[in-house]
Amino acid sequence: MKFLLVNAGQLVTMTGPSGPRTGAEMGKVGMFRGGSVLVGDGKILAAGLSDFVATHPDADKARILDIGGRVVMPGFVDSHAHPVFAEPRLKDFELRTRGKGYEDIAKAGGGILSSVDKVRGAGDPQLLDNLLRAAARFIECGTTTLEAKSGYGLDVENELKLLRTIQRASKVTALELVPTFLGAHALPAEFKGDPHGYLRRVCEEMLPAVAKEGLAKFADVFCDRGYFSEPQAEQVLRAALDHGLKPKIHAEQLSRSGGAAVAAKVGAVSADHLDHAEPDDLAKLKAANVIAALVPAANYFLGLGRYPSGRKLIDAGLAVALATDFNPGTSPCWNMQFVLSLACTQLGMTPEEALCAATINGAHALGLGATHGSIEPGKQADLIVLDMEDYREACYWFGGNQVSMVMKRGGIVHSDREYRA
Amino acid sequence: MKFLLVNAGQLVTMTGPSGPRTGAEMGKVGMFRGGSVLVGDGKILAAGLSDFVATHPDADKARILDIGGRVVMPGFVDSHAHPVFAEPRLKDFELRTRGKGYEDIAKAGGGILSSVDKVRGAGDPQLLDNLLRAAARFIECGTTTLEAKSGYGLDVENELKLLRTIQRASKVTALELVPTFLGAHALPAEFKGDPHGYLRRVCEEMLPAVAKEGLAKFADVFCDRGYFSEPQAEQVLRAALDHGLKPKIHAEQLSRSGGAAVAAKVGAVSADHLDHAEPDDLAKLKAANVIAALVPAANYFLGLGRYPSGRKLIDAGLAVALATDFNPGTSPCWNMQFVLSLACTQLGMTPEEALCAATINGAHALGLGATHGSIEPGKQADLIVLDMEDYREACYWFGGNQVSMVMKRGGIVHSDREYRA
Repeated sequence: MKFLLVNAGQLVTMTGPSGPRTGAEMGKVGMFRGGSVLVGDGKILAAGLSDFVATHPDADKARILDIGGRVVMPGFVDSHAHPVFAEPRLKDFELRTRGKGYEDIAKAGGGILSSVDKVRGAGDPQLLDNLLRAAARFIECGTTTLEAKSGYGLDVENELKLLRTIQRASKVTALELVPTFLGAHALPAEFKGDPHGYLRRVCEEMLPAVAKEGLAKFADVFCDRGYFSEPQAEQVLRAALDHGLKPKIHAEQLSRSGGAAVAAKVGAVSADHLDHAEPDDLAKLKAANVIAALVPAANYFLGLGRYPSGRKLIDAGLAVALATDFNPGTSPCWNMQFVLSLACTQLGMTPEEALCAATINGAHALGLGATHGSIEPGKQADLIVLDMEDYREACYWFGGNQVSMVMKRGGIVHSDREYRA
Repeated sequence: MKFLLVNAGQLVTMTGPSGPRTGAEMGKVGMFRGGSVLVGDGKILAAGLSDFVATHPDADKARILDIGGRVVMPGFVDSHAHPVFAEPRLKDFELRTRGKGYEDIAKAGGGILSSVDKVRGAGDPQLLDNLLRAAARFIECGTTTLEAKSGYGLDVENELKLLRTIQRASKVTALELVPTFLGAHALPAEFKGDPHGYLRRVCEEMLPAVAKEGLAKFADVFCDRGYFSEPQAEQVLRAALDHGLKPKIHAEQLSRSGGAAVAAKVGAVSADHLDHAEPDDLAKLKAANVIAALVPAANYFLGLGRYPSGRKLIDAGLAVALATDFNPGTSPCWNMQFVLSLACTQLGMTPEEALCAATINGAHALGLGATHGSIEPGKQADLIVLDMEDYREACYWFGGNQVSMVMKRGGIVHSDREYRA
């Protein structure tokens, strides 16, 4: 099936250099007024000014979709999410609204370990159903590719259960899921006081099993006060590399814990959060070409009143990606449009930088920059139509959903109206 | 047409005392597990446990809607909004993302007066079309009643144009619009340096014209530094009372400006914003039974990093309402669900308090407490179905829309699936 999208009021292509975008390149969106896109066999065949696209030999074989002057841009690539869990953490949430802090919530049996308990007690169908429900919401809101971390199992059986759920869901949902093994998310209760014992389990049992079944592309570790230390994080990520998994890291979220330095040392694809990163950390990340993935929705939800500075990171020359951090404890948000809003209102980023971070740089943060994240001939046809005239409106209106149509691998997977000429 | 909604997993009725809810009453949502609602002739006929509702004589004449275990609650009543404008203020927004402040934006021709210029240049069809587009978005997100302020006209002709647009829209959209005359929104350019001259125009020409055509239920004034002073606000609101319009006021938003005291003196229905209200102001508002309407989405959008304290206001005994403040300059947000999230994550309010503030207290802030804002026999049948099992999820998930069905005056005006038994 071929489609010719015509009459895009603004076509935001995100074309540019082949690597992750940094500096002034993050401010360029490659926009055409009055654009067309020709799609076939799941790929972009041509994109740009309508008169130019119409000259493509396949243009007259395509079914025409009239975009009606709306905005077309690449689907969002959300590079940091924990979307497989058993249930929302409403109790933690409610305690927080009653003024309780982290300690009180942990004492009341909340936090990551409560999600681990629920996942261990949950059957495969429940986890799959939850993930597919979430996937439908992501798609409706314009996300076409989503990272999916494990990390609520914390033993061999349950980490595999989560990753197999992701694999199974991938066969059903149109949302492209990129699996990440996060066995080192927290220390499970049965290893209390014995992080070394647990990490031996992670490195010697879980990682080989995950690699053997081909269940993950990335491995991640939560490097922070109360979680895993700098040397422990390095141990896990080096073991991951030995098993062919690419490293990612939760770094400098709760405190300056050395995660950024580890990311640079092991050559991580991305260092995520970075709330407490210092100039020295940024220099190391830049030198090692590590992408900075910011997840401000968690700061919002926890009411921290402070956010990682997107502005400073971009000015330091880093390639910044934006992600939801979708998870039941600290970021129950599946809408990348809201993350765009946060970037522009709280992180000091311009609309152009935010859109770049949510598409092409997100793709690079998942090792997919060559095939995803921009509308260019040869790339996968993942794109969205937004019900607006100006692409900046994607960052301006907030708290709602303005995605009108979603195309994944060249097929229409969501639409709020008829797009037929 | 009669409907019997059955199989609500949780039916949140918001039943309670007849007046605005304060203190512990704000924490009660009147919830039934396994509830039904019987609706007929636009009104609620019965609501509560299914077995009880089934005994109503009209129950077997009604068409059954199976809610499938989801949550049913009153439609949101959004008591503070400026939804009639000509275009979004993208330029102001973009300047702000580039670090420019209020002064720079004003110098670049932005701010309220730029919206006034656009409205004066806009034709009726454009304004009507914009308002109807916004109304559709409000409805989709669960708002069934919305205040609609004028205030971007600032002369007789254009203030009437805005209010007539609201009146015209009311005949088309299912969203109930409650019109408020806000002639004293800012000093128009042609009266620069002459606030008295402008207020004479407001009181002696606009108010009589608005009253004569029956175009507004309320009158509002922006009492703040750079806008209108305490005595000026009082002058406008007393004149409004003389013309049968009930007073509302933008109070203590940018500075402690005396608006709360004016609200108490003139017996305003609500005092809105209240970021800088002091304990003394709260005592005055409480003594005069003025509702505190909080609009935190504006704080969010402006990146202020601080919010009005819902907690303090409730603890001071005030009836708190929540609203979007939907407007093109400081709050381009139509989704009350996001305001619920702000209330719980940034304002120190519990989910129950937030829901109360967004429904029954919102209704009271529009003088509609006797007929709107709760699911009780005799009240207008304005209710929503949320795609969740627990009503607290309405405050927990954020940045998206979880409204699955909207019923206004007993008719289904939005639905994302078939609700047929």
